[in-house]
Amino acid sequence: MGSRAVIRRLQNPKVIPKVARAGQETGMKIDGVSYRSVWVDREDGWSIRIFDQTRLPWALDILRLTDEDQVAHAIRSMQVRGAPLIGAVAAYGVALALRKDASTANLERVVAMLGATRPTAINLRWALDRMRAALHNLAPADRVAAAYAEAAAICDDDVETCRKIGEHGLPLLREIAERKGPGSTVNILTHCNAGWIATVDYGTALSPIYQAHDEGLKVHVWVDETRPRNQGAALTAWELGKHGVPHTVVADNAGGHLMQHGEVDICIVGTDRVTRQGDVANKIGTYLKALAAQDNGVPFWVALPHSTLDTTVRDGVAEIPIEERNAGEVTDLTGRTADGRIETIRVVAEGSEAANPAFDVTPARLVTGLITERGRTEASEKGLAALYPEKL
Amino acid sequence: MGSRAVIRRLQNPKVIPKVARAGQETGMKIDGVSYRSVWVDREDGWSIRIFDQTRLPWALDILRLTDEDQVAHAIRSMQVRGAPLIGAVAAYGVALALRKDASTANLERVVAMLGATRPTAINLRWALDRMRAALHNLAPADRVAAAYAEAAAICDDDVETCRKIGEHGLPLLREIAERKGPGSTVNILTHCNAGWIATVDYGTALSPIYQAHDEGLKVHVWVDETRPRNQGAALTAWELGKHGVPHTVVADNAGGHLMQHGEVDICIVGTDRVTRQGDVANKIGTYLKALAAQDNGVPFWVALPHSTLDTTVRDGVAEIPIEERNAGEVTDLTGRTADGRIETIRVVAEGSEAANPAFDVTPARLVTGLITERGRTEASEKGLAALYPEKL
Repeated sequence: MGSRAVIRRLQNPKVIPKVARAGQETGMKIDGVSYRSVWVDREDGWSIRIFDQTRLPWALDILRLTDEDQVAHAIRSMQVRGAPLIGAVAAYGVALALRKDASTANLERVVAMLGATRPTAINLRWALDRMRAALHNLAPADRVAAAYAEAAAICDDDVETCRKIGEHGLPLLREIAERKGPGSTVNILTHCNAGWIATVDYGTALSPIYQAHDEGLKVHVWVDETRPRNQGAALTAWELGKHGVPHTVVADNAGGHLMQHGEVDICIVGTDRVTRQGDVANKIGTYLKALAAQDNGVPFWVALPHSTLDTTVRDGVAEIPIEERNAGEVTDLTGRTADGRIETIRVVAEGSEAANPAFDVTPARLVTGLITERGRTEASEKGLAALYPEKL
Repeated sequence: MGSRAVIRRLQNPKVIPKVARAGQETGMKIDGVSYRSVWVDREDGWSIRIFDQTRLPWALDILRLTDEDQVAHAIRSMQVRGAPLIGAVAAYGVALALRKDASTANLERVVAMLGATRPTAINLRWALDRMRAALHNLAPADRVAAAYAEAAAICDDDVETCRKIGEHGLPLLREIAERKGPGSTVNILTHCNAGWIATVDYGTALSPIYQAHDEGLKVHVWVDETRPRNQGAALTAWELGKHGVPHTVVADNAGGHLMQHGEVDICIVGTDRVTRQGDVANKIGTYLKALAAQDNGVPFWVALPHSTLDTTVRDGVAEIPIEERNAGEVTDLTGRTADGRIETIRVVAEGSEAANPAFDVTPARLVTGLITERGRTEASEKGLAALYPEKL
C-alpha cells in the first residue's frame, strides 16, 4: 500500500467543487458532477489521477500515480479495472516512465512491464502498442510530450468511442420499448462492470443504457453481483445509482430464472477480448448468462471498442489465456458493517481451498451481435470484417 | 433469537464424547465422530436437537427445540435447511405440538402452520402429510407416542434412502474412474448443499461421493459457493472437509469455464422438488449449471429421495412456486474476520436494492438422469413411472 496516496475524499463536501474542476465535463455523473475515470492532475500537470476502485462504493478515494510502478500496481491490484480503462491508464504509465528516462530501452522495458500486468484484456496490449508506435521513432527529447499527447488522445478517443457505442446500442432499447408499448420498462441484464468507470467515460455495455435513460426511456437494469470481486454489486450498482438509473442487484445465480420468467428483455455485457470469429472473453460467468439467454430467446449483445478486437486469435476458448487470480478473492470479501466499519471476512469454511479463474469465453454462436463504435454487427469473421475491413 | 438455546459448542473438547453419544453411529463424520443432523435429546427423551446451520462453519452450535414455534423458526431462518432435513424436523415439530395438545384441531393447525414455512421444497409437505396420515385416526391419548415413532421412522427411512441413493450413484463415479484410467481423479461439480446436513445422514447428491471416497476412489469436488447464502462455501465445503473429501470452492460463475476446459466429469445436485415430467426445482443457479453441462457434454445428474417427487405438478417452470427471500441475503454477508470475530458486512452499493429468488427450475431436457433410492432413471414421466409405478 506504499504506492497508495489517498488525497481527497469526496465525502468531504468542501473538496467536491475542487475535484469536480479537476475532472472534465463529459457525460457521466456522480451526484450531478461530471468526471472521467482517469485524468492528468491540473495542479502539477503531469501526475495521473484515478479513483481507487477497490475502495468503491464505500469511499471515493482519488489516487495520485507518479511512476510506472504505481501504475502497474494500480492495474494488478484492480484499483483501475475494465479493459478500456486499463489501456488508458497504462498509456499514461508509459509517459510517467519516460519522464525519468526517455531512452528506447526504457520505452521497451515499460511497455513489456505494463503489458504483463493483466493477461486477458487485449486493450492493454493495444494501448501499449499504440504508445510504442507513436514514440519509437521520435528523438528521446521529444518523447515525453508526445507520450502525454498520445495518452490523452487514447483517452479522448475512448470517450468518443464509448459515446458512439451508446448511440449504436440505443436503437435496440428503443425497439424493445416500442414493442412493449407505452409506459413499459425495458429490463436489461448486465454482468460485471462495463460502465463509465471501466472506461474513460460513458462505458461500453452501460453506454446505451445511460443514453436511453438520459433521453427519457424507462429502463431497469438487473445487475449481476459478479462474484468473486463483486464489480456488479459494488461498481455497476454504484454508478447506476449515482447517475439515477433504476436497477436491482441479483446473485449471479439468478439470471437464468429471471430469463425463464420473461423478466429480462435483453442482455448487454462488455468484453476484455473479442476474437476474429467473434468469441467473447469477459468476466467469469458471462458464458452462463449467454447460455440462458439462448435457451430463453433473450437477445445477448456484447459492447466493445475496436481496441478490444484481437484478430490474432480465432478460437477464444482454446486460445485466450485466462487469468487465474488469487484464491483469497473467493474466500474473503470486504464490505461495510452496519456501524460503518470496513471489514474483510472469510466466507469459505476454514481449511477449504478455492480456485479463481477470472474470465470465461462465450462462443460466438451464443452472441446475438456486437455493438461497436462503428455500428452493430454479427459476432463472426464476416460481421467483423464488414465493420473493420482494415483489421481482418 | 429468543427461541435459540445454544447448549454446547463442540469446540470445547470436554463435551465432544458426550455429544458424540447423543448422536447415532451412522455414516457421516465430523472429525471422525458420527452424527445425524437431527435427533431426540437423550437426556430428556423428548426435545429435539439440531445443528444451527446458520452458524456453520464458524461454530458448531447444537440447538434444543421444545415447541412447534421453535421448529417453524428453525425452518424459516434456515437453522435447518435442505429439503429432506426440513421434512424430518417438521415431523418432530408435530410431535412437540401434540405433547401440549393432542387434539385433531391442533394436529391440523400445526400441519398447516409448519407446511407454510417454506414454499418450494415438497418434502416438507410430504413429511407433514405422512404425520397426519399416521396420527389422524388415532385416539388423542395415543398420538404423542405415535408422533415420535413416526418422526423417528421418517428419519430412519431418510437415512436408509440416502444410503441407497449413494449406492445407485456410485457406479456413475466408478465408470468415470475406469474410463479415465488408473490414478485418475473423478471431478464432480455440485451446487448448494445436498450433503448429510441437508438430510438426516449421507446426503443425496453427496452420498455417492462419500461412498466413492470411503471405498478408495479418487474424487475431487468443485463446490459452487452458492450465493446468496453460500451453502456451498459454508456447508458443503465444511462437511466434505470434515469427512476428508478433497474439494475446491469456486464462485458460482466459474462452472461453465471449468466444463469448457474438461475440468468437470459429472455434475450431481440435489433437489427440492421434481415434477411428474422430471423438471427439477433446486437452489437458484442450478439451471445455469445444467445449461453449461449440456453445452459441454457433461452428464448432469440429480439425486433425490421419493419424497421429493411431486406428481401433482407437471411443468416445473410454470407451476412450482419459487420462494422470494429477503433482499438482505444478497446485500449482506456474514463471515469471520482474520482475528476471529463474526461480522456481517454489506457488499452492495448503498441505496441499491436487491432481489432474491431462492430457487430455479431446470427443465427435464437438461437432466441426464435421476438417482433415487430405487435406482437410476431418466428425468421423464416414463422414467419416473418405471421406478415409482404406485405414484404415477
